[in-house]
Amino acid sequence: MKLNCDLGESYGIWQIGRDDAVMPHIDMANIACGFHASDPDVMAQTIQSAIKHNVVIGAHPGYQDKQGFGRRSIPHTHDELKHLFIYQVGAMQGMCRLFGAEIGYIKPHGALYNDMMANEAVFLALVEAMAQANMRIPLMILARSDNQTYQAIADQHGVELLFEAFADRAYTVEGQLVARSIEGAVYHDADTIIRQVKQLVEKGTITTLEGVDIPLHADTVCVHGDNDESVATIAQLREALGE
Amino acid sequence: MKLNCDLGESYGIWQIGRDDAVMPHIDMANIACGFHASDPDVMAQTIQSAIKHNVVIGAHPGYQDKQGFGRRSIPHTHDELKHLFIYQVGAMQGMCRLFGAEIGYIKPHGALYNDMMANEAVFLALVEAMAQANMRIPLMILARSDNQTYQAIADQHGVELLFEAFADRAYTVEGQLVARSIEGAVYHDADTIIRQVKQLVEKGTITTLEGVDIPLHADTVCVHGDNDESVATIAQLREALGE
Amino acid sequence: MKLNCDLGESYGIWQIGRDDAVMPHIDMANIACGFHASDPDVMAQTIQSAIKHNVVIGAHPGYQDKQGFGRRSIPHTHDELKHLFIYQVGAMQGMCRLFGAEIGYIKPHGALYNDMMANEAVFLALVEAMAQANMRIPLMILARSDNQTYQAIADQHGVELLFEAFADRAYTVEGQLVARSIEGAVYHDADTIIRQVKQLVEKGTITTLEGVDIPLHADTVCVHGDNDESVATIAQLREALGE
Amino acid sequence: MKLNCDLGESYGIWQIGRDDAVMPHIDMANIACGFHASDPDVMAQTIQSAIKHNVVIGAHPGYQDKQGFGRRSIPHTHDELKHLFIYQVGAMQGMCRLFGAEIGYIKPHGALYNDMMANEAVFLALVEAMAQANMRIPLMILARSDNQTYQAIADQHGVELLFEAFADRAYTVEGQLVARSIEGAVYHDADTIIRQVKQLVEKGTITTLEGVDIPLHADTVCVHGDNDESVATIAQLREALGE
Repeated sequence: MKLNCDLGESYGIWQIGRDDAVMPHIDMANIACGFHASDPDVMAQTIQSAIKHNVVIGAHPGYQDKQGFGRRSIPHTHDELKHLFIYQVGAMQGMCRLFGAEIGYIKPHGALYNDMMANEAVFLALVEAMAQANMRIPLMILARSDNQTYQAIADQHGVELLFEAFADRAYTVEGQLVARSIEGAVYHDADTIIRQVKQLVEKGTITTLEGVDIPLHADTVCVHGDNDESVATIAQLREALGE
Repeated sequence: MKLNCDLGESYGIWQIGRDDAVMPHIDMANIACGFHASDPDVMAQTIQSAIKHNVVIGAHPGYQDKQGFGRRSIPHTHDELKHLFIYQVGAMQGMCRLFGAEIGYIKPHGALYNDMMANEAVFLALVEAMAQANMRIPLMILARSDNQTYQAIADQHGVELLFEAFADRAYTVEGQLVARSIEGAVYHDADTIIRQVKQLVEKGTITTLEGVDIPLHADTVCVHGDNDESVATIAQLREALGE
Repeated sequence: MKLNCDLGESYGIWQIGRDDAVMPHIDMANIACGFHASDPDVMAQTIQSAIKHNVVIGAHPGYQDKQGFGRRSIPHTHDELKHLFIYQVGAMQGMCRLFGAEIGYIKPHGALYNDMMANEAVFLALVEAMAQANMRIPLMILARSDNQTYQAIADQHGVELLFEAFADRAYTVEGQLVARSIEGAVYHDADTIIRQVKQLVEKGTITTLEGVDIPLHADTVCVHGDNDESVATIAQLREALGE
Repeated sequence: MKLNCDLGESYGIWQIGRDDAVMPHIDMANIACGFHASDPDVMAQTIQSAIKHNVVIGAHPGYQDKQGFGRRSIPHTHDELKHLFIYQVGAMQGMCRLFGAEIGYIKPHGALYNDMMANEAVFLALVEAMAQANMRIPLMILARSDNQTYQAIADQHGVELLFEAFADRAYTVEGQLVARSIEGAVYHDADTIIRQVKQLVEKGTITTLEGVDIPLHADTVCVHGDNDESVATIAQLREALGE
């Protein structure tokens, strides 16, 4: 079970995230591409850190909205979605080439990720763009119980998918994330987080907020490294899973 | 003698340049990459137009300064120059892949171009970036009488150079462009422009503002297509040179 | 009946609109404030032109989205709406003071205007901001048959409203604008435009797309000056209305 | 002796500075205006904090360059300088009005401040803008031994000046700041900082890096609150100066 984490989301003089502390413990780094966060210099620094720690580099494109950190849904046409997506992936590929590296996968950020999961048409635009540009790397999306439609669209375009579960989020019986507004939606306790991930690895199931076990297929688990506590949890989780 | 022209410099709703009228008459399109002008949608449109007219696509990166159209020199460190340059080239490569095309060369824009020609350290940063990213395409710079140092730096890094002359600019006896502030620095007359380019092709010389013929090696000539008159001149020049 | 027009929507090197041709014929200029379009230099130029032609200056704030020209709705909280609105109005006031002028009213732009008319909460945020900042100038909104609720909110906060009708848009029997997607929604013919405005002035009615006359109260009429034809129509309309 | 500090330089999700810890100890807050840092929401929050702690609000405008944090000199014409300066001051005034406050003074930021002190023409542009907009608040500039020319320009335009010394910077015998690149240019030790400010208050002199006492007139002292240590120093300095 691979651990992935959003990184490289600083901008200019503004630092965010505990990137240096997180990088040694994860397998896959979702690196911001300059639209919702980051700039060419932050990207260069983050790519070099990923290379040093042997972490797979993922392009993490978002809407062009630094003030909103890519968390606000901005209306785009089908073609506009393809263009803003590929522009950022291409920029990341260029930056990687500068350091002899390559992108291993793509994971959309924030509102673009949410729009992709909520709206098949957005997902289709991204898949089409990847197929059309002959990307030959996987697209990471949310592991849900009902991803058959999304899988079918991806198959049709020859795009591989990676499914990610969330280490610190509660699930509904429908296999969806519990909305953040509901109490208990986010786990802060290291034991709970580790237990959820180990169960996912060993049994392929998640225990929902209601206490029901449901099957969930995940290739990778998303972790967060915003503060000292969450970084410590990542380290513990890494150890619990073994190298 | 190839004709090159700056294109794709619109932005959002704002149109600039007579791109559709110019494209049929040129060989190489220097396409803005989203920092000094353009956005992913304008890039997509311009790339498709270049493909349709069989025009070689050049990345045209500049300083990140839309309000100043990339014409203001902004201080950057050596590494920052490499990063902003490769970010834009990578973005353009991604956009080209979306349409099955590739970049044929790189030509810096505006103040970045001027800084590159005025300051060896800036040129070195760009050449280093291209070598490091293993670009394998040429860099277009200003044809001058004294480009030996620049050629030596490029050779050392295995980067090919393309030299461009200006169809509509007067030259000094030192083989430099006459500053725009000096009267007669810019030619507006189609006959003069065509004569200058034909002489460059046939004799490899330029007649300076002072009336002296100096040798100048150029691989390509830069033309401008801002208005109806200049577009007409490009068409005439194209015809004068033959297909 | 006052004529108002959106102006000052150029940006950096990019020109848009026939501002110089329109200014002599209108009474009120809705001048962009740098978020959806314009920059401090374009604002300075437009303000000076308005002063020269004795045109009342209106602040025309929008969402911060130059690439989308402020036409994309971007989610904001109540407080965020107040802040982005007052920031732009304050900036416009500062620029006006530089030329000894003052703002006469405020008219939101594009998606912010539409959101204000579609969503009472957005309207309330703007009205609250104006009251709280003690603006003492009117807010321009869309003249509709059912603006009682909006009028009540404005009254409650002591904010004066100006109602604008559209010279070149068809209306429904409910007193709403016919959606642009419907055939006949936009009038391009000068005679029709002039007839609609004269009827509004003389009878206080609009003939809807279905041919029914409905009452509509308007303080001002919005005109557009994007091209030669529309500028000519404005001049004719001005003449028809008398000075 | 008033203490002033740069504050409100966060942006969107990115936090910088220990604003809440600093605000109780200072007299004057130089609040960023959205060009080099900040946004309307950060401005609103910072203004409210200043009001709560009875701190005078200063507009702190800079070049429009968030990635470079306004620390890169960007070429502007005389008029462009006036416009970008007044735009930001006006925006800050608008935001202040929203909370019933007013701007007490203006202090340029970063490269704009440095350009103003290094280049009389830049200073003149800012002074002219303030006079023309009838600002009636002072402009804060660097206290130097040779500010007679600057004082004369300001007098001529009826603009009041405030002179600021730096609590934590070493001075040359010419009454200039020692360049940061020189060892000993910045004081980190609280005792040294407090001694320098007390001497300035009591004797009107500064002891230069070479150990010579020179006279220096200052109305205010600039302090920095980037980390726990510097915040503690501000509190100590405040106590040493008395309320």
